[in-house]
Amino acid sequence: MGEFKHLCMAKFKEGVVVDDIIQELTKLAAELDTVKYFGWGKDVLNQEALTQGFTHVFVMTFASAEDLAACMSHEKHSAFAATFMAALDKVVVMDFPLVFVKPAPPLA
Amino acid sequence: MGEFKHLCMAKFKEGVVVDDIIQELTKLAAELDTVKYFGWGKDVLNQEALTQGFTHVFVMTFASAEDLAACMSHEKHSAFAATFMAALDKVVVMDFPLVFVKPAPPLA
Repeated sequence: MGEFKHLCMAKFKEGVVVDDIIQELTKLAAELDTVKYFGWGKDVLNQEALTQGFTHVFVMTFASAEDLAACMSHEKHSAFAATFMAALDKVVVMDFPLVFVKPAPPLA
Repeated sequence: MGEFKHLCMAKFKEGVVVDDIIQELTKLAAELDTVKYFGWGKDVLNQEALTQGFTHVFVMTFASAEDLAACMSHEKHSAFAATFMAALDKVVVMDFPLVFVKPAPPLA
């Protein structure tokens, strides 16, 4: 049951056109069937003490840990990851099964 | 339209009982009507170069930026935040409207 998340917080290097990165990610997510959901966000409160300079969040959702692993090892992901990492000043990536608390998940 | 996310990545101090924190957060999310969804996750891949030592993700979802602001300024949130921050070694908090890319959001 549940969903497996691949979450990335990014601070880009000066001069990087983030819209281009988002376009590439959108293409990647569309091409890889294992990616169930893809979304992103840009911090709007700009509280430096809380954001630590990170500006963007990217999140991909998979049906299982196996689907995540398949995506991560896909050549299209590897090619993108190399470009992506080169554009970053700082990054944190976390991979986890999401535990739903509220609302309570249906009994199954 | 859309959802407003309050996302927190945490690395706890040694000796902190994370289950207790999660229990408090669960109670808080249940008590505050503005919190539409609450979930959390623990990184399972343990790739230090990617996680930078962060271990947990907490995410609350609100219907709007106004609901988020109401929650953040609520005395119950403030009381919890003080305890929470004291338990942390490192933290990143980001607040953003989530942009859904895949699947494409319905036209409305």
